[in-house]
Amino acid sequence: MKTSIGPRTILGPQPALVVGTYGADGRPNLATVSWAGICCSRPPCVAVSLRAATLTHGHVAARRAFTVNVPHERHVDVVDHVGTVSGRDEDKFAACGLTPVRSELVDAPYVAEFPVVLECRLVHTFELGLHTEYVGEILDVKADAEVLGPSGLPALSKVRPVVFSSAESTYYSIGEELATAFARRAKR
Amino acid sequence: MKTSIGPRTILGPQPALVVGTYGADGRPNLATVSWAGICCSRPPCVAVSLRAATLTHGHVAARRAFTVNVPHERHVDVVDHVGTVSGRDEDKFAACGLTPVRSELVDAPYVAEFPVVLECRLVHTFELGLHTEYVGEILDVKADAEVLGPSGLPALSKVRPVVFSSAESTYYSIGEELATAFARRAKR
Repeated sequence: MKTSIGPRTILGPQPALVVGTYGADGRPNLATVSWAGICCSRPPCVAVSLRAATLTHGHVAARRAFTVNVPHERHVDVVDHVGTVSGRDEDKFAACGLTPVRSELVDAPYVAEFPVVLECRLVHTFELGLHTEYVGEILDVKADAEVLGPSGLPALSKVRPVVFSSAESTYYSIGEELATAFARRAKR
Repeated sequence: MKTSIGPRTILGPQPALVVGTYGADGRPNLATVSWAGICCSRPPCVAVSLRAATLTHGHVAARRAFTVNVPHERHVDVVDHVGTVSGRDEDKFAACGLTPVRSELVDAPYVAEFPVVLECRLVHTFELGLHTEYVGEILDVKADAEVLGPSGLPALSKVRPVVFSSAESTYYSIGEELATAFARRAKR
């Protein structure tokens, strides 16, 4: 017998990610988001939900580009800071000691210090209510060599991304490997 | 200096979740998804991406309803099984020893054994390419009493949801608490 807790925006695990954009003045900005994830394989796309009140919302609409930066758990304080301060009030890159790198593929900056970044070109804008969902085509993924696994792709145990629990206002780390996926398919 | 690994659908952490639907014959079915997450606060909405080739894709379109079930890590083998077998070939609830519960709010079943479920009414269908993104309004969240934290909402440390790493075809658990969120805002 389950307890009803109402129509809440609660779902776990959700990521803590940082979106990079340029403002009208060309200054790089950052926003922490949790409501973001891959949404299509062909073309490869990622969705990010933002409120119209945020600075980043206008930046994405104007430049039609953004980056999705995956922080290592060592950056959790930066992730929290970026999520609680507006780019209207401070230069978040400078305040956090982060280095903006200009993407060569899209009109947006990425964070040099974070291990993985997705460079995205805006392809869809969906108005859902209080949030706008921006869908970006992933033009490239770039990663630090030290987070790549045997397959040449980022390994979660090395990237060590951050999980965000909105219900608890708490950040969690990634834990242990539970199982290999597609076990049944492999057996056929 | 980052390594380019191309336009891949890689982003961490992503969840491993299980979508519940009814077929045309009224039989309950399940699908494992990783490309899913909250996308709007008002109305509260969750997005799920599915390929048209899947049985669940047609079910959602026909019934305009689905549930998003959050498995505990003890269910990881069930999650993997559900993700590798088609409902055309077997009754996944029966094969996995799971109990379908008819939602009283939407025309879809949920999994009695999983600790948290979101009951959703389809409100948007976005064709993105190989994947369709279904956006469902969350009409209720139901949770087992033993996974609720002090706030009365599900605590990640008790739900113990599953993280999926597509780059490694591996499931991970949730780790330790890293930090409390909104630390800076609280200080003001």
